[in-house]
Amino acid sequence: MSTVITLTTDFGLADAYVAVMKGVILGINPDTQIVDICHTIKPQDVTQASFILSTAHRFFPERTIHLVVVDPGVGSQRRAIILRTPSADFIAPDNGVLSYILHDFIPIPRQKPTEQEQIKLPAELEAVTITNPEFWRSPVSPTFHGRDIFAPVAAHLSLGVPPADFGEKITSLTMLPLRQPSRKDDGSLAGNIIYIDHFGNLITSIRSEDLPPQEETISIEVGGQRIKGLSRTYAEGTGLIALTGSSGYLEVSLKEGNARDFLNINIGDEIIIRRWSTHNDVVR
Amino acid sequence: MSTVITLTTDFGLADAYVAVMKGVILGINPDTQIVDICHTIKPQDVTQASFILSTAHRFFPERTIHLVVVDPGVGSQRRAIILRTPSADFIAPDNGVLSYILHDFIPIPRQKPTEQEQIKLPAELEAVTITNPEFWRSPVSPTFHGRDIFAPVAAHLSLGVPPADFGEKITSLTMLPLRQPSRKDDGSLAGNIIYIDHFGNLITSIRSEDLPPQEETISIEVGGQRIKGLSRTYAEGTGLIALTGSSGYLEVSLKEGNARDFLNINIGDEIIIRRWSTHNDVVR
Amino acid sequence: MSTVITLTTDFGLADAYVAVMKGVILGINPDTQIVDICHTIKPQDVTQASFILSTAHRFFPERTIHLVVVDPGVGSQRRAIILRTPSADFIAPDNGVLSYILHDFIPIPRQKPTEQEQIKLPAELEAVTITNPEFWRSPVSPTFHGRDIFAPVAAHLSLGVPPADFGEKITSLTMLPLRQPSRKDDGSLAGNIIYIDHFGNLITSIRSEDLPPQEETISIEVGGQRIKGLSRTYAEGTGLIALTGSSGYLEVSLKEGNARDFLNINIGDEIIIRRWSTHNDVVR
Repeated sequence: MSTVITLTTDFGLADAYVAVMKGVILGINPDTQIVDICHTIKPQDVTQASFILSTAHRFFPERTIHLVVVDPGVGSQRRAIILRTPSADFIAPDNGVLSYILHDFIPIPRQKPTEQEQIKLPAELEAVTITNPEFWRSPVSPTFHGRDIFAPVAAHLSLGVPPADFGEKITSLTMLPLRQPSRKDDGSLAGNIIYIDHFGNLITSIRSEDLPPQEETISIEVGGQRIKGLSRTYAEGTGLIALTGSSGYLEVSLKEGNARDFLNINIGDEIIIRRWSTHNDVVR
Repeated sequence: MSTVITLTTDFGLADAYVAVMKGVILGINPDTQIVDICHTIKPQDVTQASFILSTAHRFFPERTIHLVVVDPGVGSQRRAIILRTPSADFIAPDNGVLSYILHDFIPIPRQKPTEQEQIKLPAELEAVTITNPEFWRSPVSPTFHGRDIFAPVAAHLSLGVPPADFGEKITSLTMLPLRQPSRKDDGSLAGNIIYIDHFGNLITSIRSEDLPPQEETISIEVGGQRIKGLSRTYAEGTGLIALTGSSGYLEVSLKEGNARDFLNINIGDEIIIRRWSTHNDVVR
Repeated sequence: MSTVITLTTDFGLADAYVAVMKGVILGINPDTQIVDICHTIKPQDVTQASFILSTAHRFFPERTIHLVVVDPGVGSQRRAIILRTPSADFIAPDNGVLSYILHDFIPIPRQKPTEQEQIKLPAELEAVTITNPEFWRSPVSPTFHGRDIFAPVAAHLSLGVPPADFGEKITSLTMLPLRQPSRKDDGSLAGNIIYIDHFGNLITSIRSEDLPPQEETISIEVGGQRIKGLSRTYAEGTGLIALTGSSGYLEVSLKEGNARDFLNINIGDEIIIRRWSTHNDVVR
C-alpha cells in the first residue's frame, strides 16, 4: 500500500537518526511514500513541532500517517499513542505535541491554562496507547523509540493493521497550554507571536476570524511599531505590513526584509489589535 | 504516471512550506517521484535559483517537471507560466527565474542589459500563462501560490494534462540581465563570480569555450591573487587553483580549503583571464 | 526493481550536487527509492562519514545499496569500489570511508595504527574496483565522479547487474586508523570522543561490551568533570549523564542541555572509565 508517512522531528540534518527511521519503515512497507515535514524543530520544543505539523497535515492525502518524534521523555513513563481523526492518523509521544491538531476538534478555554492537562477526546477521535511489543523492533533501545517503536508502528499501520492491535483504547490526551488571543478592558485584542518562519515573518495567535469585519479599520501594534490596516500580499505596501498568512493566522512581515531582525522580537512577545479611526488618527 | 517533479524554492528547511507542496502534489498524483533540488535559495534571489536549476535539470530523466517557487511578487500581477522545452517542463513565476534555462536556447547579447526584458521565444520552446483555475486549489491564498497554484498544476501536468489546458499560449518570457564575460581593450577576458558553492568554490561566468585553446598559457586574476594555468581536478596543484567545473564554468578553488573565505570574495566580484607568456612572466 | 539506494555525501544542502545524482539514478532506474542519510558531512571528513554510515546501514532493508561520496581525491588515482557484504552493497571511493563498516567483519589491532593501511578482506566480503566505463556517464567530469561514475553504477547495480561486471575483483581495501579504547597501567579504560551529534551528545569509542559488567560501579571522567554510574535514558539523572546510546557506544549527555557546549569539548578528546568504590569515594 502506498500510504504517505510524514516525519516531524527535532533530530536535525547532521546525523543519521532520520534516515534510520526511514530504513526501518521501508523494511516493513517498501511501497510507502515518506515525506519530511521538518527535522529542524528546536531540540525538545514540543509546542513548535505541534504548530508546524498543524499547518501542514491538512494538505496531505486522506489517511496520511503523520509521525512526530519530539520526545524529551524518551524511555520514561510517558505514553506513546496513535490518534485517528476522520482524515488522518498521528503517531507521537503523548507529551502535548498533538495539541494544535486537537485544537481543531476541541475548543480551548479562553483562560490560558498554566499547565498541561489531560483533555477528553470527542467522539470523532479515536486513540490508543502503543503497548503491544509485537510490532516493535527488539530489543527496544531506551533512548531511540523513534527507531524501535514509532517507525515500525507507523509502517505496520500503513499496511492496514488496525489501531486497536497496537494497544488499549484511551479517552484523553495531553494538551499544552496554547496561547490564545484575549480581549483587554479597553476593547483591544491582545495576541502573541507563536511562530517565526524562515523569512522572518511573525505568525501570531490571532486568526482571521478573530479580527473585526472591516479589516481596513484596525491598527496593529508590535515591537514598538504601529501598522495601519491589513495588506493582502507580501508584495503590497511598504515597510512593516500585516496580513492573513496562508494558514489563517495574522502575520507581520517586512517588505523585502526580515521582520524578526528588524523588530528584534521573539516568540511569546505581544501584539495588540485596535480599531482605528481614520479621521482623527485615534485608536481605541 | 511516475514522472519526476523537482522542487527549487527559497522556503528553507525550518518550516512546513515545502512539505505542504509535496502533500498537495501527492494528493493529485500519488505515483510521482518528488526530488528536492534546493530549498536554501537566498530569500527572493531569483538569479541564484535560476543558476542552480540550470546546473541540475539536464541530468534528470526526459520530461521531468521542474517546479521553481522563488516568488517575491506572489499575489501581484506577475504571470505564472509553464515552459515546455524539447526535454522537460518548467513551472515558475515569470520573474526571470528561468533565465539560465532560456540561455541554452537564446543567445544573450554581449552588452549587458541593465534591466530585465521580455525575450521572444524560439520555435522549439512553448509557453503558456497559468490562468485556468480549474486545476488550482480553492480558495487560492494570495500569499502561497506554491501550494495553491504551482503544486497542483505540476501534479496535473504530471498526469498528462496538456499545457494548453492550463492557460493561453504566450510568446515571450522575462529574462534577467545575466552576467556575461567581456573582452577588454588590452585583450584580456573579464568575467564575474556568479555562484559560490558549499565548498567555497567560486564559479565564474566564463565557460570553458570562452577560454583560449591552450589552457596552460593563461593566468587568472581574482581577489588580488594570480593563478597560473588550469588544473584538471581539485586534487591537483597547491593553494589556489583554477579549473573547469562539472557544469562547464571556470571555477577557482582552494586546495583543501575554502576559496571564498581565503579571498574574502563575493558574488559579482571580477575575474580577469590573460594570456601568459612563460619565458618572461609577462601577461597580456 | 524497487531497491533502496542511500546517499551519504559532504555536498551540503545549498547546491544541486545531491539532486543531480538523484536525477542520474532515476534516469537509469525510475523505481528505486532514494534515501538521504546525511549530506552535511564536514567537507572531506572521511572518518565522520564512515561513522555516520556505520550507525545507519544495519537498519535498512536487506540488499540496500549505500552510496558514499566523500571524495577529496576525486580525479586522482584513488580507486572507486563496490563492497558486497552478506546484507548490503556499498559504493564509495577507496579512501577509508568504509572503515567502520569493515570493522564489523575485521578485528582492529589494539595498537592504534598511525596511518591508513590496506586490509585483506575476509571470505564473506567481496569487492571490485570500478573500472568498466560501460556503466558510466560519458564524458566523465574529472571533478564530479559522484554524478558520472558512482550514481550510474549504483543505479545499474540496483537493476541487478552483478558486481563483477563493473570491474576486477580486489582482495584488500583501505582502512583508516580508527580510535580504539585502551587499558591504562592503573587499570582504567581510556577512550575518545569520536562523534558529537546534533543534540550535543558526545559519542565515545567505548562500546557497552568494553565496560565492566556492573555498570553502577564505574565513574566517567570527561572534560574535567566526573560522572558516577550510568543512566538508562536521557530523561534520567540530572546534569551530565553517561549512558549507552542507541548505536551501542557510551555517550555523555547533558540533561536538557548540550554537553558539547557545556564542556567545550571536541572530537578526539579523551574520556576515562574507572571502577568506583562507593564506600570511600575512591576510584581506581
